[in-house]
Amino acid sequence: MITVGVLGATGYTALELLKILLRHPEVRVTALTTRQEGRPHISEVHPQLASRYDLHLEDLSHEEVARRCQCVFSCLPHVASAAAIPGLLAAGARVVDFSADYRLSTPASYAEWYEHEHPDPQRLGRTVYGLPELFAKQIPGADLVANPGCYPTSAILALAPLLAHDFIEPGDIIVDSKSGVSGAGRTPKLNTHFPECNESLSAYNVGRHRHTPEIDQVLHRATGKEVNVIFTPHLIPMDRGILTTAYSRPKRELRGDQLLALYREFYAGKPFVRVRDALPATKDVSGSNFCDITARVVRGRVVTVSCIDNLIKGASGAAVQNFNWMYGFPETTALW
Amino acid sequence: MITVGVLGATGYTALELLKILLRHPEVRVTALTTRQEGRPHISEVHPQLASRYDLHLEDLSHEEVARRCQCVFSCLPHVASAAAIPGLLAAGARVVDFSADYRLSTPASYAEWYEHEHPDPQRLGRTVYGLPELFAKQIPGADLVANPGCYPTSAILALAPLLAHDFIEPGDIIVDSKSGVSGAGRTPKLNTHFPECNESLSAYNVGRHRHTPEIDQVLHRATGKEVNVIFTPHLIPMDRGILTTAYSRPKRELRGDQLLALYREFYAGKPFVRVRDALPATKDVSGSNFCDITARVVRGRVVTVSCIDNLIKGASGAAVQNFNWMYGFPETTALW
Amino acid sequence: MITVGVLGATGYTALELLKILLRHPEVRVTALTTRQEGRPHISEVHPQLASRYDLHLEDLSHEEVARRCQCVFSCLPHVASAAAIPGLLAAGARVVDFSADYRLSTPASYAEWYEHEHPDPQRLGRTVYGLPELFAKQIPGADLVANPGCYPTSAILALAPLLAHDFIEPGDIIVDSKSGVSGAGRTPKLNTHFPECNESLSAYNVGRHRHTPEIDQVLHRATGKEVNVIFTPHLIPMDRGILTTAYSRPKRELRGDQLLALYREFYAGKPFVRVRDALPATKDVSGSNFCDITARVVRGRVVTVSCIDNLIKGASGAAVQNFNWMYGFPETTALW
Amino acid sequence: MITVGVLGATGYTALELLKILLRHPEVRVTALTTRQEGRPHISEVHPQLASRYDLHLEDLSHEEVARRCQCVFSCLPHVASAAAIPGLLAAGARVVDFSADYRLSTPASYAEWYEHEHPDPQRLGRTVYGLPELFAKQIPGADLVANPGCYPTSAILALAPLLAHDFIEPGDIIVDSKSGVSGAGRTPKLNTHFPECNESLSAYNVGRHRHTPEIDQVLHRATGKEVNVIFTPHLIPMDRGILTTAYSRPKRELRGDQLLALYREFYAGKPFVRVRDALPATKDVSGSNFCDITARVVRGRVVTVSCIDNLIKGASGAAVQNFNWMYGFPETTALW
Repeated sequence: MITVGVLGATGYTALELLKILLRHPEVRVTALTTRQEGRPHISEVHPQLASRYDLHLEDLSHEEVARRCQCVFSCLPHVASAAAIPGLLAAGARVVDFSADYRLSTPASYAEWYEHEHPDPQRLGRTVYGLPELFAKQIPGADLVANPGCYPTSAILALAPLLAHDFIEPGDIIVDSKSGVSGAGRTPKLNTHFPECNESLSAYNVGRHRHTPEIDQVLHRATGKEVNVIFTPHLIPMDRGILTTAYSRPKRELRGDQLLALYREFYAGKPFVRVRDALPATKDVSGSNFCDITARVVRGRVVTVSCIDNLIKGASGAAVQNFNWMYGFPETTALW
Repeated sequence: MITVGVLGATGYTALELLKILLRHPEVRVTALTTRQEGRPHISEVHPQLASRYDLHLEDLSHEEVARRCQCVFSCLPHVASAAAIPGLLAAGARVVDFSADYRLSTPASYAEWYEHEHPDPQRLGRTVYGLPELFAKQIPGADLVANPGCYPTSAILALAPLLAHDFIEPGDIIVDSKSGVSGAGRTPKLNTHFPECNESLSAYNVGRHRHTPEIDQVLHRATGKEVNVIFTPHLIPMDRGILTTAYSRPKRELRGDQLLALYREFYAGKPFVRVRDALPATKDVSGSNFCDITARVVRGRVVTVSCIDNLIKGASGAAVQNFNWMYGFPETTALW
Repeated sequence: MITVGVLGATGYTALELLKILLRHPEVRVTALTTRQEGRPHISEVHPQLASRYDLHLEDLSHEEVARRCQCVFSCLPHVASAAAIPGLLAAGARVVDFSADYRLSTPASYAEWYEHEHPDPQRLGRTVYGLPELFAKQIPGADLVANPGCYPTSAILALAPLLAHDFIEPGDIIVDSKSGVSGAGRTPKLNTHFPECNESLSAYNVGRHRHTPEIDQVLHRATGKEVNVIFTPHLIPMDRGILTTAYSRPKRELRGDQLLALYREFYAGKPFVRVRDALPATKDVSGSNFCDITARVVRGRVVTVSCIDNLIKGASGAAVQNFNWMYGFPETTALW
Repeated sequence: MITVGVLGATGYTALELLKILLRHPEVRVTALTTRQEGRPHISEVHPQLASRYDLHLEDLSHEEVARRCQCVFSCLPHVASAAAIPGLLAAGARVVDFSADYRLSTPASYAEWYEHEHPDPQRLGRTVYGLPELFAKQIPGADLVANPGCYPTSAILALAPLLAHDFIEPGDIIVDSKSGVSGAGRTPKLNTHFPECNESLSAYNVGRHRHTPEIDQVLHRATGKEVNVIFTPHLIPMDRGILTTAYSRPKRELRGDQLLALYREFYAGKPFVRVRDALPATKDVSGSNFCDITARVVRGRVVTVSCIDNLIKGASGAAVQNFNWMYGFPETTALW
């Protein structure tokens, strides 16, 4: 039985994590933190969890968290997460970090895209990127795992097989992604106020979204190819789900069935990637840790479509998948 | 041509009002106010209005507003509205007030439900309630019209015919209302954050909603009956629309067709009430100033269903309907 | 290990059932039926289940189903279900019936509301109604369990404590219910076509919904009180969830806290009913087998609000809860 | 006053057309057709229009339609529309065709994409494409106008300025479009059944959508450039709106402000195209005839975002805009 804590337990990823952990036979949750005052009961913050957990959210020191927990899931925002994690690691905890703080390869890239000096720069470039479909071997020995971003998960899983096989031009990739609103977090803002975004659809942060360098750098790490994707995120009026439509230019001709075979071979033995003949919908993966993928050859281009649940495979499910690899549990435990 | 101003022009009712006024041949909008700094252009606040109005929102004194405008629509919140209106009236403007400040009959009732001493108590009980279907005669001479609340409009139009004909027990009325989220205004809050209220449904303010005394008092004014409704509002995951299901106890037997005939007679000549045989949906009235009503006899009770667009017949459309009555324009101008 | 079959496995309740059964350690699914031709693979009908079940939907005889399965879940529509069940029972299978066929007390009532002579009338009035919160003792020995309707579950759980304590007038109950669209099933129709029901809200089958006698008769069976509810269902633009607002007239005075205490006492030890202080939202129970309930005293009436997921506690979760009782597994198995 | 008829008046585009025509001072609707039996009243088919039109839908011959109407809007599906139109034209009516039948340039292309021999091939390639922003001069003299498709409208308006200025490579264009569900029409199908498409997102007809050749051919006609777009449509869980994200490769460097200036110059004097600095949302144009456009330079590519209401600028609003050009009314009549 592993004792587990959650930092920043008020948001949606923490809620989904706690729901998944209810089904994990080897986990006991022993600490939930918040900076909010008043030690609220978990059921006040997340009514869905009423009668399932009898825990309060507390404003705990990192020492106290490390004392109570063997493994800590940090759902803190970036910068805050990197401020907390070195102390937790020093105190002997192992950490899965939901924030972007340890995903990029260099402090310079972090500073450029996150407009902040990295508080713990020496770990950048050395931290395992927790996408087990690509980096499973590195996870068991890791004390810190950078849990992937939601958009990058859908984009990287869509493109890695094509790049790994040197099948497409790495310099000519377009990633058009669409996400449900829960991806924007739980803090109320005008653009996620129901009557603003319901019955509406928009692109946002065109050319400036922080997941752009994450997609580039992780694809490079996984495949050795220099990639500079054009990435456009869109906000869709639904709770959950990301669908990515990726456009790439093949280096040689390939029929549609050969393309699907390439994907199937690449993901053989990966339980959470389903390569499908049919075009997937986000509802097919909603509430699950699956990434459904298909691809088509269209007028000489490759069009790849991938779907995930942004809160599960795009966040909390992936975190438990990483946890399972870290502690040697079957990869599908609590996720199947 | 009437010069018109809008106080508090940043919200949804102001947006809908300005969209309706685009079609009014006798209106020129000459002032828009906000307490926000920076004189934003209307198209920054309401992109829908880009290229339609070339006006800025300004932080104007009431004197300046009254100097520029013959008629002022106040979309300010309660208390703030009653603080502004006496000065506007004194300066010679006529006013349609969207807030609840002048709807109730007594300062005591206002203080009880709005937890605030009324800033202008002598006008309470003497201000016209702007529901032309019931009070049209009083509107042409009025300098101040209290624009009805959204829930009360749907409830009062559903129940007035039954009470006016002394057909139901006034002491045994249940009003179960359901509203889209725009009724909660444009200020982001947790309960109207998309991932909270989307795909969800809840009752709120049970037994405590401020529209309760408005329904009671206006039905009393319109029909002479003492009414104490049980009123329960619900939040529905859609932008617009209110559907009210009202349950009442008939004093005598009546067939369904006689019931509908009673409604049809009561609303004869009222262009915006459609008494229908079929059960209406809010989509039938969406974007329009209609109130669709039907009624059924069920196991000895009367079940009345009414639908409005909460932002049109429940707010901005009603305001223009009142404006038309105030200035002698055909009631349907800009609304048809 | 119990072998299990599902009749009529193409719809939403079958999908949710199969998702729940994936987590049941004592179940093996051995038959899925459909009248569709072509033996479609389950993943063609329900893409969510791809890679989880490797089964085909087949047009099987009842004999073959009974040969393969110890327990059969019938997701067939009414009439069809009662045509299939006697044969299954005769062949030795135990059955949980999702249809309305065995819920009512008399063939006459069935004929009146379902406009069809009951094909198996002698079992009416003798079949266990599978609401374990009220009838748990009868379930272990039963070969046939009538799984409750979705609306009745929410209404009966809201009202049973009040009637059982003789606290309200049984003749003066109003049940105003609101349901997500999945309750209408998976067959495309105009009223559930997305652009018709999205952004809209309507009452339907006012005074004529077939769940009316089910609510009456089961409350009578559970509490001994003669009940004739006024029941109004509404269609809400969301996938899942039912919220019922029930209005009743207390026989004696009771404070709000006493009312909640009455509910808490009644449901003590029932893991799936959560009596809450706060007003629940359907999202609080979405995807779970919980029924969340609260109640208020409003102007001398009792207003009870209950929430369920219509496909889980209102259908497939309840079915597995019944299955657990039938076979002596812990009630929460696969549902917790 | 022009007498007007609508063929196939049961669908969403007919409904929106009839709502717009209510505001047109020079139109009288004199015929509505359907193949449905029973001469339903318009308010039975479209409850929104109750009390606004007192017309029945009739199964009329083309002769009778042409006898009653000077101008006919055909909302029939493809093939059916081209079967009806020659007779109407021969009988002296002028026609705006909502179907795809007269949009393509050659019978061969039509046969390839619509899998049907064109019933009236000699008019292909000679019929005016009713996008007044590009082809206004040809419309006044036309007896037949092919009303543009919804996706093509958003794509063509986004790309025409870039191609007309020879600013981008015509052979390297990706059009990623997202549409609300009303674009799929009013006939219930599984993929537009609410619980299927709500809370979901999918790509469909990848590489095979029939609007692909329309985009290619009309861009060619308007700009002289040979274009072969990669076009991917997506289904979004909302009623209305199309957002197109177009990716193209510039032939020379241009700053973002120069890019916007290029668009502004191209659309100067076009009342329904708003070139905006900010990223538009479909809600900004919902219910209006506007197309909002912006563009960005991202890593050496041009990313253009355009928004329309698929039922207005993408169908019925465009049709009335064409009608206004045909009959010499101000372009914005009934649309402003």
